[in-house]
Amino acid sequence: MSKHLFLHINKYVEVSAAEFSEITSFLNTKIVEKKDTLMHAGSKNISNYFVINGCLHMYFIAANGTEKVVQFAINNWWISDYLAHARNKKTNYFIQASTQSEIVELSSERQKKLFKAHPKMEIYFRHIYQIALGASLSRIEFMFDYSKEERYLNFVKNYPEFVQQVPQYLLASYLGLTPEYVSEIRGKIRS
Amino acid sequence: MSKHLFLHINKYVEVSAAEFSEITSFLNTKIVEKKDTLMHAGSKNISNYFVINGCLHMYFIAANGTEKVVQFAINNWWISDYLAHARNKKTNYFIQASTQSEIVELSSERQKKLFKAHPKMEIYFRHIYQIALGASLSRIEFMFDYSKEERYLNFVKNYPEFVQQVPQYLLASYLGLTPEYVSEIRGKIRS
Repeated sequence: MSKHLFLHINKYVEVSAAEFSEITSFLNTKIVEKKDTLMHAGSKNISNYFVINGCLHMYFIAANGTEKVVQFAINNWWISDYLAHARNKKTNYFIQASTQSEIVELSSERQKKLFKAHPKMEIYFRHIYQIALGASLSRIEFMFDYSKEERYLNFVKNYPEFVQQVPQYLLASYLGLTPEYVSEIRGKIRS
Repeated sequence: MSKHLFLHINKYVEVSAAEFSEITSFLNTKIVEKKDTLMHAGSKNISNYFVINGCLHMYFIAANGTEKVVQFAINNWWISDYLAHARNKKTNYFIQASTQSEIVELSSERQKKLFKAHPKMEIYFRHIYQIALGASLSRIEFMFDYSKEERYLNFVKNYPEFVQQVPQYLLASYLGLTPEYVSEIRGKIRS
C-alpha cells in the first residue's frame, strides 16, 4: 500500500507501520485510466478517493448540458461528494480521472467500519475536511474577487505542474472560464 | 449553557448531560450586537463560533474596497476561517454579527485542549466539517449553474426566515449580486 498515504496520515495523527497495515485492509488501491468514471450521478454508493499520483475531478452537468468542474484532487488529496456521503443520499456529481492515476478507494460502508476499528482515522479526517473546507471558502473568495485573467494567471503561478498535467478544458471549467478564453490568454502569455 | 448545542452534538455523537457540562467549561456563551466584529483580518486568534440564535457572517474586503460575504452561520451552524485555524496563520477575513445573536465561542487554544480531554468532539467536528465542506461545494455549483435571478429566488424559497432576518445587502453580497439588483427582483416579485 501507498507510502504516500502512510506519510500523509502521519502528518496529522501518529500511526505505526503495523497499524497502517491494518488500516489498509479497509482500502483499495487501483490504477484508473484517463476518462474512467469512478462515481456516477444518481448513485448512492459514494466512495472517498485519495490520489497517490495523478488527478481526479468532480463535475456536474449544468442545465445547458455542459460539464462543470467543482473540485479537483491532485497528489495527496481526497475527493468525494461529502454531502451525499454524510446524508446517505444519491449524488448529483460524477468523479472522473483527469489523467491516468493511481488512487486509493475508501467506500462509505468501509469508512464506518474503519472509524470504529481505528478512531484515530476520525481525527485524520477531521483535519482533512477542515483544510478542504477552508480551501473551498478561499476558492469562493478567488471567484469573487479576481478578474478572469487574474484567476487564470494566479492559478498557473501557484500550481504550474498541475496546469501541465490537466486537460485545459477541465481547468477552464474549474475556473469558470471558457476553453476559448483560456487559449486566448495562453496565446497572450506566449507572445 | 445552550440546550441547542447539547442537542446538536448529540445528533452526531452520544454525550451525556454530565459530559456536556465538562465540555462547556471550554466554551464561552455570549450575546453580540448587530455589527459587532468578532474576528479581524490580520489576527492570529482564530475562534470557532456556534450560533445559538441569530446570524454571523464572514467577509473579506475586495480589491475594489467592497465587503464580500463568503459564508453565513445561522442557528446550529459553526463559522470560522478554517484554513487560518488549521495552519495557525493570520486570517484575511472578518467575522461580524449580521443581527443581534447569541453565540458560543471556542478559541483555537481551547479547541486543542477540548479534543484531548473529549476525543468524541473530534468525531463531532469531523461530521460538522464534512457537511460544511459538502455545502460549500454545492454553493459553487449554485454560483456556476444559476442565473442571478434563479440564485436569489432559490435562496428565498429554501431559506425564507433567513431572508427576513438578514440585511439585504449582505445577502446580495453572498449571492454575488448587487444590492440594487436584489431590490429590483424584490420589486418584481411584489408586483
